Amino acid sequence: MRAARLHGYDQRLQIDEVPTPELRGPHDVIVRIGGAGLCRTDLHIIEGIWQEKSGVQLPYTLGHENAGWVEAVGDAVTSVRAGDAVIVHPLITCGLCPACRSGEDMHCEHGRFPGITTDGGFAEYLLTGERALVRLAEGVEPAQVAPYADAGLTAYRAARKAAGLLRPGRWAVVLGIGGLGHLALQCLQHLSAARLIAVDPSPTARELARELGADHVVDGSDPVAAVRELTGGGAHVVVDLVGERGVQQQAVAMLRQGGTHVVVGYGDTLQVPTIDLIFSEISIVGSLVGSHTELSELMSLHAAGKLELRTRRYRLDDINQAIEDLQQGRIKGRAVLVP
Amino acid sequence: MRAARLHGYDQRLQIDEVPTPELRGPHDVIVRIGGAGLCRTDLHIIEGIWQEKSGVQLPYTLGHENAGWVEAVGDAVTSVRAGDAVIVHPLITCGLCPACRSGEDMHCEHGRFPGITTDGGFAEYLLTGERALVRLAEGVEPAQVAPYADAGLTAYRAARKAAGLLRPGRWAVVLGIGGLGHLALQCLQHLSAARLIAVDPSPTARELARELGADHVVDGSDPVAAVRELTGGGAHVVVDLVGERGVQQQAVAMLRQGGTHVVVGYGDTLQVPTIDLIFSEISIVGSLVGSHTELSELMSLHAAGKLELRTRRYRLDDINQAIEDLQQGRIKGRAVLVP
Amino acid sequence: MRAARLHGYDQRLQIDEVPTPELRGPHDVIVRIGGAGLCRTDLHIIEGIWQEKSGVQLPYTLGHENAGWVEAVGDAVTSVRAGDAVIVHPLITCGLCPACRSGEDMHCEHGRFPGITTDGGFAEYLLTGERALVRLAEGVEPAQVAPYADAGLTAYRAARKAAGLLRPGRWAVVLGIGGLGHLALQCLQHLSAARLIAVDPSPTARELARELGADHVVDGSDPVAAVRELTGGGAHVVVDLVGERGVQQQAVAMLRQGGTHVVVGYGDTLQVPTIDLIFSEISIVGSLVGSHTELSELMSLHAAGKLELRTRRYRLDDINQAIEDLQQGRIKGRAVLVP
Amino acid sequence: MRAARLHGYDQRLQIDEVPTPELRGPHDVIVRIGGAGLCRTDLHIIEGIWQEKSGVQLPYTLGHENAGWVEAVGDAVTSVRAGDAVIVHPLITCGLCPACRSGEDMHCEHGRFPGITTDGGFAEYLLTGERALVRLAEGVEPAQVAPYADAGLTAYRAARKAAGLLRPGRWAVVLGIGGLGHLALQCLQHLSAARLIAVDPSPTARELARELGADHVVDGSDPVAAVRELTGGGAHVVVDLVGERGVQQQAVAMLRQGGTHVVVGYGDTLQVPTIDLIFSEISIVGSLVGSHTELSELMSLHAAGKLELRTRRYRLDDINQAIEDLQQGRIKGRAVLVP
Repeated sequence: MRAARLHGYDQRLQIDEVPTPELRGPHDVIVRIGGAGLCRTDLHIIEGIWQEKSGVQLPYTLGHENAGWVEAVGDAVTSVRAGDAVIVHPLITCGLCPACRSGEDMHCEHGRFPGITTDGGFAEYLLTGERALVRLAEGVEPAQVAPYADAGLTAYRAARKAAGLLRPGRWAVVLGIGGLGHLALQCLQHLSAARLIAVDPSPTARELARELGADHVVDGSDPVAAVRELTGGGAHVVVDLVGERGVQQQAVAMLRQGGTHVVVGYGDTLQVPTIDLIFSEISIVGSLVGSHTELSELMSLHAAGKLELRTRRYRLDDINQAIEDLQQGRIKGRAVLVP
Repeated sequence: MRAARLHGYDQRLQIDEVPTPELRGPHDVIVRIGGAGLCRTDLHIIEGIWQEKSGVQLPYTLGHENAGWVEAVGDAVTSVRAGDAVIVHPLITCGLCPACRSGEDMHCEHGRFPGITTDGGFAEYLLTGERALVRLAEGVEPAQVAPYADAGLTAYRAARKAAGLLRPGRWAVVLGIGGLGHLALQCLQHLSAARLIAVDPSPTARELARELGADHVVDGSDPVAAVRELTGGGAHVVVDLVGERGVQQQAVAMLRQGGTHVVVGYGDTLQVPTIDLIFSEISIVGSLVGSHTELSELMSLHAAGKLELRTRRYRLDDINQAIEDLQQGRIKGRAVLVP
Repeated sequence: MRAARLHGYDQRLQIDEVPTPELRGPHDVIVRIGGAGLCRTDLHIIEGIWQEKSGVQLPYTLGHENAGWVEAVGDAVTSVRAGDAVIVHPLITCGLCPACRSGEDMHCEHGRFPGITTDGGFAEYLLTGERALVRLAEGVEPAQVAPYADAGLTAYRAARKAAGLLRPGRWAVVLGIGGLGHLALQCLQHLSAARLIAVDPSPTARELARELGADHVVDGSDPVAAVRELTGGGAHVVVDLVGERGVQQQAVAMLRQGGTHVVVGYGDTLQVPTIDLIFSEISIVGSLVGSHTELSELMSLHAAGKLELRTRRYRLDDINQAIEDLQQGRIKGRAVLVP
Repeated sequence: MRAARLHGYDQRLQIDEVPTPELRGPHDVIVRIGGAGLCRTDLHIIEGIWQEKSGVQLPYTLGHENAGWVEAVGDAVTSVRAGDAVIVHPLITCGLCPACRSGEDMHCEHGRFPGITTDGGFAEYLLTGERALVRLAEGVEPAQVAPYADAGLTAYRAARKAAGLLRPGRWAVVLGIGGLGHLALQCLQHLSAARLIAVDPSPTARELARELGADHVVDGSDPVAAVRELTGGGAHVVVDLVGERGVQQQAVAMLRQGGTHVVVGYGDTLQVPTIDLIFSEISIVGSLVGSHTELSELMSLHAAGKLELRTRRYRLDDINQAIEDLQQGRIKGRAVLVP
């Protein structure tokens, strides 16, 4: 089959002919890819940022945001069968470690992460496990929903953490209204009744925030001052989808006494004097991709027609064009590769 | 009356003769001081670290950790009367702002903080408000419990935040077994059934940790490695009573996937790459002094005989000696000034 | 002033000329009534059901759902002033007991409940306390919002308890779409993304539920079977605004394994075999009127235009007509008395 | 192998020679029984109370509280191997349904319950699944810990529900200090710092409660009055291990405003006027056996030496004697059958 593989850091991906993956264990599942989302993490992988953390050997196939149809299943698989349309949770989990047992399966001690630590979904077929799959509702097309598998799931988990701290009348800020941010904004609207401020330096992103119904939309010129004034003293929660270029520091500066900074975007280093942590009693909360349960919940929101996901499709062969478009900020919403 | 006042930053306190405070508002209460604890924050105030945050004018009387007897009460006071033995919550709160309404009164929008923003308790009498007082159980002497008002309350709140994340078999680390740490350790023992590791470079402090029943006691040579090995991959929660000299960075490095760093001590700046916040999905949680409700709970623990508070008494006139002893690490437990 | 008073159980109210209330304590506030909602609890009071619990002496003025304008304030009042438009939390609380301290002020140990235990708002003026008041946003008319003070606040608190248990894709049932139910339904829509089923035997009420956007609307013929089929095994949460005529038993029979019955309506006795409580691991959760903080949150929802409150106005002199209309089920939404 | 089987309701068990169970699925595990606890639920099964709920066909082998050694494992088993000493969670769960995914595996949609719905552990060997097993710490003997698998786990889960509502100074009551109660009491001591009142009509049970350090011990003559007086108005939480003979009603009558009745014991019907549920805003919370995660946590408490489990051993052949002793209240702690 054809697959887009990384042969060296800071290089373009190559479309290679590689063996189709085969079932090896009793819970393995082969998924025929319907669509695979392109993520900023793919750019970071190509830049080599993840090299040490993932420990992966080159070349390998990227793509960790996948949906498609079940092609073949291992002997012990009971919950899906060939032909089922599915979205693929990014992690293959064991189901038996303490994290899996307690519902936090994205912290699985034996988790494998196709597209990051093993071959992913920028290909015709993907090897994953039964535990990773969520069946799609009748009539939902895989390519249409693939970005929920990672971008959506990450946005949803961050929004859940934020919503747990928000009550009507409280203020939340979403920093960065891109692929994740436009979903985080919508999830917050459905999971809380807080007042929402969207911040983005890009006019296109701000227009999107307005279309999606943000209560206030702020540009990047002096967002800290703007938020402090709107909120009368700072936000209760800031969801930061950027995490670099100083935005991570702005997030902290926007917080009200007792406020929480939910960190989703990454790249730079956060610096906070400990006296500020104490005196304002603020929290800084990292947020990873969500659990399988959270992916199911997100697909329920989608099935109920409550979310608008912006995507742009590319053929698998055009992946380097998609990467370039993402790097240049030319994509509104999320790029999806269709093999 | 006599009071120990700060006339200039980085100077010794002076014992001055000042007017005895008088009732001004209907909820005011005058407390005759039985004991006032000396806190590392007093050292930081003298060093000028709080100058900008507090906006206080010199000279003024320090002392924010007070207990004593009610001397006089304002017209509208109903909950205490003259002669009652009381411990004094450090903050005078309004009772009407959203923070007070929701039980988080230490975030009161109109809070005054005697000993930090107005005259405190290193004196014969203190002006405070009805809402700050917790009546002591029969037979409890004020000088014996004064350090609970701030050191104890801060340790208790941090322990409660930690305990909410701990279940039997999980691991918690307490960094720094001094005035706050020896109480945080005991509170954690009573609020959770987690396994507790105490870390301190001082042999005296480690001995105290052992006496108090810490499951493991670690010195300061390579605490990160020691904790990671004991816990098989990192602690679920680290309570950091130091917050400076690099300890704040060690705290983060000790955390397990999904772990939480509760920051209580302060002084230096915490630096965390956002990718580490995300990838390990850790949280950093500032913790201030506790609420009035938490002070009541802490006094219940004391009344039940569950806490051992180490104090050393000084006469008010010897306050500069006490300050020097604290600076030199010569005090086991907490210094209490008795007028 | 004129006031509608109860002189004997099971009798009509009388419009009496009574002395206008006067300030007695430093935190007292006199409110000129703009509107006072009529509640099913008023019917229960007239029937004598509350006689023993309230211990009130007849005659007295009913009316516990009030809004208006501040007329006069006691000496120590700082948070409102004459002329302010306000909604009145039904309870006058002390601010100093453990319940008030922890944000659960509707459990105040010294609470007084005008309209139930003392004179209420079916009158021109009401004596209440500073702690009971929430200032209205610019342009909001008291008569328009009075029912939020009790019906709305009770519905909101129940919805919050329910929402804490609901996640996208889960099922909630609202039993009874009357004065409280039509608000509980809307609050649930804003506080959760669960799927909502409205149940009511009245065609008018079901029409209202449809207009408000319930996902499913069920009549009273066999609601247990209907809910079990729609939900594939039972609801996660049932909010029961009826609590009598067997509905309280239907609520339990509708629950899924691990489900929760939130009880708001009252009248009959709930009977549950303990084996069913265990085997299905269900919870039964009583819900009272909400806290002051919850009233503020509810007014934020209203100010954001998220709630539709159906009211019908009566002159104070027509109160017995209003009572009869409520008894006969002739009121869509909530009756409001305007003096 | 030999097994104690029920051939007819209200009859004595028979020791039969039956085929040893065999591996059928890839995650099956055969456990050689080291000890199997005798539970009041076994009495209820023999009486026929569970007949309808379990739908089991007679004859079959009772025994749902098992520990032993792994004898053989299915092809896909990775987490245990032959020879491991294990305690057996009572439920065989699927790992894939929403309940298992979210950490509430005792609500598994496909759960099987050996000893209740299929053959149990009053035998030499037991067929269970990999997901049910918790490995024992070095040196722990299965017969010594078997009662944790159900009695302990049920007590622990109830104590956790209670502990989540308890803070220092609050009051909890444990009703019934038998097999479950003496463990619930100890778990509460380790999971909270509340004040604990133990209630039991039996002098032996009360003596046990005193030995275990209950703060107050009350007999059965008028426990409601005794608790209301000790607590100054009622308990915050009552854990009811009895659930019959009127005790379930006493539990409700002991509650303070806002209190919670955790129901563990069963037999009779609970009756509560809905007005009492509302007016006192109380909750009634059923509690089943715990999750696998909770069993691990409980075994951590045991491994830390924090629990004292009273057992009395019988040979499997003497099972009817054990049953009679349990019925007659002649067993202090828990009976364990050793094959």
